[in-house]
Amino acid sequence: MPPKGELTRQKILDAASQVFWRQGFSATSINDLLAATGVTKGSLYFHFPGKDEIGLAVLRQERERFLAFVDASLSGSSPGAALDSFFSAALTQHRDNRFVGGCLFGNTALEASDTAPVFAELVAGVFADWQQRLQGWIARAQEGGEIRPDLPAGQLAEFTVSALEGAIMQARLTKQEGPLARCMTTLRTLLNLKPSVQRSFQ
Amino acid sequence: MPPKGELTRQKILDAASQVFWRQGFSATSINDLLAATGVTKGSLYFHFPGKDEIGLAVLRQERERFLAFVDASLSGSSPGAALDSFFSAALTQHRDNRFVGGCLFGNTALEASDTAPVFAELVAGVFADWQQRLQGWIARAQEGGEIRPDLPAGQLAEFTVSALEGAIMQARLTKQEGPLARCMTTLRTLLNLKPSVQRSFQ
Repeated sequence: MPPKGELTRQKILDAASQVFWRQGFSATSINDLLAATGVTKGSLYFHFPGKDEIGLAVLRQERERFLAFVDASLSGSSPGAALDSFFSAALTQHRDNRFVGGCLFGNTALEASDTAPVFAELVAGVFADWQQRLQGWIARAQEGGEIRPDLPAGQLAEFTVSALEGAIMQARLTKQEGPLARCMTTLRTLLNLKPSVQRSFQ
Repeated sequence: MPPKGELTRQKILDAASQVFWRQGFSATSINDLLAATGVTKGSLYFHFPGKDEIGLAVLRQERERFLAFVDASLSGSSPGAALDSFFSAALTQHRDNRFVGGCLFGNTALEASDTAPVFAELVAGVFADWQQRLQGWIARAQEGGEIRPDLPAGQLAEFTVSALEGAIMQARLTKQEGPLARCMTTLRTLLNLKPSVQRSFQ
């Protein structure tokens, strides 16, 4: 069993993650974090020097969780099926969240790009890691004739990340799954993802 | 010549627009706005009750400017050429801004979606208006054989908006035009935009 201090630190991170995700980093005060975590100010400052350090620790934790989710959902009977499975898993996750919060990394990108270089660099790394994973599977799907071969896998992976981030933004804005679900349908068609590997995901 | 009060109001809106665009709405204080506009606190509060009202007035002003930009750049010798021209104009604009600021509406979407319904509704309206314009030109391009006809124009327009918003996010995050320029190249290919209407835009 981890020591009590570690449990408290984890409790702060998990609660802070939820608050940042819904209302953004800038709009969150230390008092918001105290209310969400239920710990005392003394305890919070014992574990973290300030809000920036909590923000960075949250992003590092969520990076690991997100990349583990990507790796776990990229699985199937073929590379094309793995990509299809990832699309379905991402839609399910956002649907389960009722399109609240969106993507923590996309949110942070738009908050931090011009004002907080350390945050921006960390988030850029998450997108690069995600894109690299997709690129590998897209390249293998292209080799197997499951995705159109006329565009480089890296270019399609970068495009897929952009399209998904934009669609998550629209779904979150309107609180409707349509923009994200249709984005995935459109991506499947535009990539010529082999129909036999596509699950019914509506 | 407009009366002095109107000039001051406009001066506040233009300066506030720049500050919100770069650092976000939540991270901007009234003091930031006073520093950026150069007006006194009394003058600022004479024109606007508070930050929320300035934010809404900025969004309304920028909505008109953005839709005028969309309409002006959607022009060419054919519907496909008009769409191509819009892509080029959007890239040029973000390049001229050195990928600072990104898209004010996308930024606001991610800040306001779960916390500020009035802002979210206004931004959702901007995206709907933009999408509707693209849909009209895509439908005409499809009729003229300049864009693939196998997906509904509305679905392709929604997808294009999502892809561009995601790519603007990535370009702003990395301060490189690559993600946005490649997104447009990829879109042209995936939409089967007739090569003869495509400008060289690198």
